[in-house]
Parts: sequence; C-alpha cells; structure tokens
Amino acid sequence: MDTGRLEAFSDGVFAVAITLLALNLVIEGPVPHQVTPTLATQLVNHWPSFAAYAVSFATIGIIWVNHHALVRNFAKVDRPLLFLNLLLLFFVVSIPFATSTIAAYLLEGNADASLAAAIYQGVFEGMSISFTLLFWWAIRREHLRVALTAQQGRQATIRFGIGQLGYIAGIGLAFVSAPASLALSGLVAVCYIFERTPAAPQLPGGQRQGDHDEHPGA
Amino acid sequence: MDTGRLEAFSDGVFAVAITLLALNLVIEGPVPHQVTPTLATQLVNHWPSFAAYAVSFATIGIIWVNHHALVRNFAKVDRPLLFLNLLLLFFVVSIPFATSTIAAYLLEGNADASLAAAIYQGVFEGMSISFTLLFWWAIRREHLRVALTAQQGRQATIRFGIGQLGYIAGIGLAFVSAPASLALSGLVAVCYIFERTPAAPQLPGGQRQGDHDEHPGA
Amino acid sequence: MDTGRLEAFSDGVFAVAITLLALNLVIEGPVPHQVTPTLATQLVNHWPSFAAYAVSFATIGIIWVNHHALVRNFAKVDRPLLFLNLLLLFFVVSIPFATSTIAAYLLEGNADASLAAAIYQGVFEGMSISFTLLFWWAIRREHLRVALTAQQGRQATIRFGIGQLGYIAGIGLAFVSAPASLALSGLVAVCYIFERTPAAPQLPGGQRQGDHDEHPGA
Amino acid sequence: MDTGRLEAFSDGVFAVAITLLALNLVIEGPVPHQVTPTLATQLVNHWPSFAAYAVSFATIGIIWVNHHALVRNFAKVDRPLLFLNLLLLFFVVSIPFATSTIAAYLLEGNADASLAAAIYQGVFEGMSISFTLLFWWAIRREHLRVALTAQQGRQATIRFGIGQLGYIAGIGLAFVSAPASLALSGLVAVCYIFERTPAAPQLPGGQRQGDHDEHPGA
Repeated sequence: MDTGRLEAFSDGVFAVAITLLALNLVIEGPVPHQVTPTLATQLVNHWPSFAAYAVSFATIGIIWVNHHALVRNFAKVDRPLLFLNLLLLFFVVSIPFATSTIAAYLLEGNADASLAAAIYQGVFEGMSISFTLLFWWAIRREHLRVALTAQQGRQATIRFGIGQLGYIAGIGLAFVSAPASLALSGLVAVCYIFERTPAAPQLPGGQRQGDHDEHPGA
Repeated sequence: MDTGRLEAFSDGVFAVAITLLALNLVIEGPVPHQVTPTLATQLVNHWPSFAAYAVSFATIGIIWVNHHALVRNFAKVDRPLLFLNLLLLFFVVSIPFATSTIAAYLLEGNADASLAAAIYQGVFEGMSISFTLLFWWAIRREHLRVALTAQQGRQATIRFGIGQLGYIAGIGLAFVSAPASLALSGLVAVCYIFERTPAAPQLPGGQRQGDHDEHPGA
Repeated sequence: MDTGRLEAFSDGVFAVAITLLALNLVIEGPVPHQVTPTLATQLVNHWPSFAAYAVSFATIGIIWVNHHALVRNFAKVDRPLLFLNLLLLFFVVSIPFATSTIAAYLLEGNADASLAAAIYQGVFEGMSISFTLLFWWAIRREHLRVALTAQQGRQATIRFGIGQLGYIAGIGLAFVSAPASLALSGLVAVCYIFERTPAAPQLPGGQRQGDHDEHPGA
Repeated sequence: MDTGRLEAFSDGVFAVAITLLALNLVIEGPVPHQVTPTLATQLVNHWPSFAAYAVSFATIGIIWVNHHALVRNFAKVDRPLLFLNLLLLFFVVSIPFATSTIAAYLLEGNADASLAAAIYQGVFEGMSISFTLLFWWAIRREHLRVALTAQQGRQATIRFGIGQLGYIAGIGLAFVSAPASLALSGLVAVCYIFERTPAAPQLPGGQRQGDHDEHPGA
C-alpha cells in the first residue's frame, strides 16, 4: 500500500486543524446601543488567545514537519499503521478545542484555569504518544525504507522523551500556574525546532528511494 | 480517467468533515457578571458531545480507510462512479450536523432524544448504503484492478451487512434508548476495525499495479 | 506549468466549501429555562436549510466533476488560467454564504426572500460564467491535450447555455417566487448530471495522455 | 526531500483560509418577535465585509499563485525552508481573523477603525516578509532548479518592494483613513496580478525539470 493517500488525508487534517485555530481569535464587532470596550482593550484582554494560538500553531506545524519526515521513510503502509495514524489525527483534531478552552480560562486563576491547562497538555501528551507508537510500529514491522542505526535509535528515544516528559511536567505545572504551563508547551515547541527527528536519514545522494526526478544512475 | 483527483477531493472532504466534528466540543468561556458553572461541571455535562465526537471520528476514520482500500483497486473511474462517490460524500458531510444534533439532545430523555439518535443512525445508514453502491458499481463494470474471488465476494457481503444491519437496528433502538443507540454505533465502528474489506486484495509482491516505486520486474 | 497543484488547491477549496455548507444545518440544543420548540418542529421549520443544502451540494459536486474533466485535458497552465480559476473559486467560496442567506429568508415571503434568491442565483451565474471563461481561454490558447471537434464545440455551447440561461431565468423567477427559483436551480443541477461536458474527450484506448499506468505500447 | 508534500500541506492551508474568509459574510436571518432591518439594508450596511472579503481573497489568491511559481522551482527542500514556509502560513492563517476585525470596525471612524486597519496591513506585511525570506533562503542555498539571472534578481527585488512598501504605507494610512488603507491593499493586489514573479523562469521547452509527461527527448 502506497503512502500517497495517507499523506494527502493527514495533510488535509493538519491543514484544517491549524487553520481552525485562528477562528478562536475572532473579535466581536461593536454591538449597537451597548457599551463595548475599545478594540485595543479587547485585544489586550484577549492575549491568552493569541499566546495559545501561537503555541498551538507551532506545535501542529512541528508535528507536521516530523510526520512528513517519518512518512516519507515508509516503504509500505499496513492497516495498523493507518489506525495509529488516525489515533494521532484524533489528538491533532482536538487541539483547536483544547486551545479555545485554555484561552477562555487561562486568566480565571482558579481550578478552572488549571483544569483547562491540564487538558491542553493532555492533548499534546496524547499526540506525542501516538506519534511514538506510529514510529515504533514502523520500526518493528520493518516498514522503513532506510533502517535506523543504533545511534539514531538512541537519538529518537531522547527526542521523543523531551516531548513526553515536557508535556507530563506541563500537566503537573498546570495545577501550580496555568500560564507557566502554557509557556512550557511553547518551550517544548522551540526545542523541537532545533532537535531533528532521525526518522528520515539521508539516502546516498540526498534522494528518497523511488523518487522519479533526476535519477542519479540514469 | 485516473483516480488521483477523485482521491484528492474525497480526502479533502473527509479531512474537513472529521476536523469540523471537534468544533462542537468548544466550551464557552465564563460570561462576565453571570454565574457560569465551573469548567469541570461543564465538561461532565458535556459528555454526550465527547462520546458522539469519538464515535463519529472513528466512523469517518474507518470509512476513509475503506474508501482508500477500495479506490486504490480501481483501474478506471467513470462518470456514474464520480456521482456515487458524491452521494457517499453527501452523507459524510452531514455527519458533523448529525453529531451536534445528537450531542445537544441525547440527555433530553424524550421524543427529541430518540429523533436525534435516529437521524444520527440514518446518516450512517445512508453512508453505508452509498459505499455499498460504489463497491457494486465498480464490480459490475469491471473497474477493479484485481477481481474478487467468490470467497472475497461472500466476505464483502457479510462485511457490508454488519454495518447496514447495525445502523438499521440503531434506528430502532433510538426509540427505546438514545444512549444505547449511540453505544451501538460505537460497537459497529469497533467491529470494522477488526473486519477488513476484501476490496483491496494483495497483488503478488504486495504491489499496487501501476506503482512506480521499485518495479520488481524492472 | 503542470496541472497538479492547480488541481490540489482547487480540490481543497471545493472540499472545504462543500463541507461548510452543512454548518448551516446545525440545530441549536434546548436552551435551559426557556421554551424551545421540539426537535421535530425545528427540523420541519428548518426545511429551507435542507433544501438549499441539497441544491448547493449538488451544484458544487457537479462543477467539481466538470472542473476535473476540463483540467485533466489541459496540456499546460498559464498565468491567466490560474487567475480565471481563482475567479471561479471566488464564486464557489461564496456559495456557503449565499446558501445560508436563502435558507434564512426563503420563507419570509416578501422582498427579502426575492433578494436572497436572486443573490443565490447570481452567485451560480457568476460561477457558470467563470467556468465558461476558463473553457474558452483553454481552447483559444490551444492548451488542451485533445482539441474539440466542431460537434463537440456545439455541444459545449449548448451545455454552458443550459446553466447560464437557467440561472438568469432563476434571477428573474426569484422576484415572482423564491421557492420556485430554488427549485429551478435544483432542476439545472439534475440536467447537468445527465448532460456531460465534452471537454474531456476519450483518447484512443481510454487513456489520458501522459498517464503512467499500463502504458499500452509498453 | 521532495516538494510534493510541502505543496499539499500549503495548498490545504491556503484553501481552508481562503474559504473561511466567506464565513464572515454570513447574514443573520430575521429574529422572531424582533425588528430586524431588511436584507437589503443589512447587505448595504455590511459592505465593509464584502470589500474586505474581496481584498483578502485576491491577496491569498495571488500569494498562492506566487507560492506555486516559487515552489515548483525548488530542487530540494531543507528543514529551515519548511519552517520559513510555516512562518508564511502563520500569517496566511491569521488573515481570516484580520479580515473579520477590519470588517467589524471599518465604519467606527475612530481609533478602533485605525487599529483594525493597521492590524490588517500588518498581517499582510508579515506575509510579504515571510515570502521574501523563503525566496532568499532558496536562492542563498542554491535550492532552485533554475538560477535567476541578474536582471531577474533586480525584478524580484522591485516586485517584493511593491508589496512591502505598499503594506507599510497602508499601516501609516490606517491612522489617517481606514477605508483608504483597505483600498490601498486592494490596489497592491491588482498590481501583483500584472507583475509576475521571476521565481519560475521557463525551462527550454516550457517544461518543469523532472516532469514525467511527454519527455521531449524520450
């Protein structure tokens, strides 16, 4: 089974989920015959929405980059892989909900803020675990075009550890300070920008096997 | 006519529909100068939304996996097939509406809950019938790359029977207990995870005809 | 310039627009401490939404089938073609707005209903004219893989005439009876199911030039 | 790394963002037992929404055409390019928010209107800068299939200058007149229709390197 449609469907879900994040930013226009705060005041009070939007956008963006790197190394796709991918997408699709919840409750400063932040981190933790399962299944079933070396395996373990420990710490931190918990998720996202997944090692010649363009040996 | 764009458009619709499901989960933030229940209370009272989201996500996910398996076995696509595919997508696109309706009325415990659950099951039944029509047309017109054996034909009949009988039973059950009817849809989804469609038999060498990668005989 | 990405982007827009149509169907749940009509009553009163949804879904679906047939016959894509395609998508993207407007005002039975129906038909007319422009540009610039015969040219003219006259008649009819105008759009959609575009004539062997699968001469 | 999935994901985001613009157009139906203005009055009063929709649609459409032209000239995609592309998409995804904000506040005629127009221009400026960064990185790392000539380099500088100066002027103009600022964005969009990016020079034979169709030398 080829990877083309797995990528097309996943890309569609990533694209819609990342675009829906911004729906939460929409500011209500002035209501006739009623006192509305100025736009500047509304924007300032709305800052948790913008912060949560930026963190969620970066997180979905990075998981897309990594998904891209992982899937292009798949030699084939079996049915369990499709369902593990659906599990990953289940959490991706939940991110707009978790984002609007944390945005609405972040400044409440009570149990609601903590719960909202814990849900937010929990969705990221679920996404991170699903991605790891997808990765492990692909290795175990020898579905990769290019197998990982022992060193790459160690790097991958460290890499996935960053996210999973970060998000678990974030769930705990949510009950101390919800804004700090949100900041931690942002920090995890920044880490992943610089730490690359080893799931897509370069083939000799920098080519993906099976690519049609510029066959080096042709 | 090639299958590429049929898949691209269908994947787009599946991806948007599955992502829109989560819009229904969004919790309102606290309203100023008004008593709002705590977030925890709202989440607990909101459980029909989460249950309906999970069942609908699994159902769309599974129909996507099966659609994927069916379409990759198409040797060509004719105009009636495009319209049967649109009929399938018509029901897929209706799922977010049916999901939000059952979520809103599930706990009403009267004729409204039953009607909402019956509509939900009815949309799934329509989707299931459209998928069967798509399958039958492809077989009848000999559009498949690899024809089904008699045994695979029997398996397919059984398989489609599970869903269609399940959803018809669900329509009836809706008038006894709406939550039980929702649970039945979830059960049907779980069945389909383990029961594979025979629409995409393995070619010798595990390859899809026409694949460009790694031609075994090249 | 290849047609792949033109199709991918257009398919994305078609897919999102067709799925957003259903957002308009969403029924409000019962409001606490307030008398809400039963779900059955709401659904019956909501019939213009369902009728408009069905007509708009069929119309977008058919224009997608025709777009698919036209674009696969393109040998190349130039910049004006991209902008004519954007013009077509401009009207496609406006359909969810026009659909929710006609659904909200259809039963008002006054100037509002007529105006809403005229806007609805006007968006379809704009879509139809853009599609014709796209077709004419492709013919004039000899961008088609397979040129049309004189008879196919006549059929195409008749075909595009059906839609454009139908929608102009619909704009007029809107000021007599808004529901009759909506019914006329549905009738135009049904006509197009049976009347095929000649934009994608069959190549010898039923193949699209440049297809990779099953090279007949290989 | 191939460009296919970069294009698929970007196209998905462009497609969803451009379609979500129209959500802002939706007119409320008549509210029972309440005086609602006629549909015609609502549409006339709603003109900033339609104007902002047209400008934003044209701007996203044009950036898509240019993105398309740029990416098809990429010989390979590295990780920084993926993140620069995400930065571009971050601003694209923010356009529906900026559009609904300017539409809601354009007629307020005070500091709110100016702020809303300045945000709108600011998002376009961010998008324009990200696109330039994407372009510069591709040139610097010699990722292009066909290198630019000195003259093409000058044209590109002029071209990007139009947009960036236009949007900076628009931010300033927002504090003088918000509607004039919106009109300026529309003017920039019209300029870009006629001014082509030199990022995708024609290869000999009008072919993209690596295309499979009709190999001229085969």
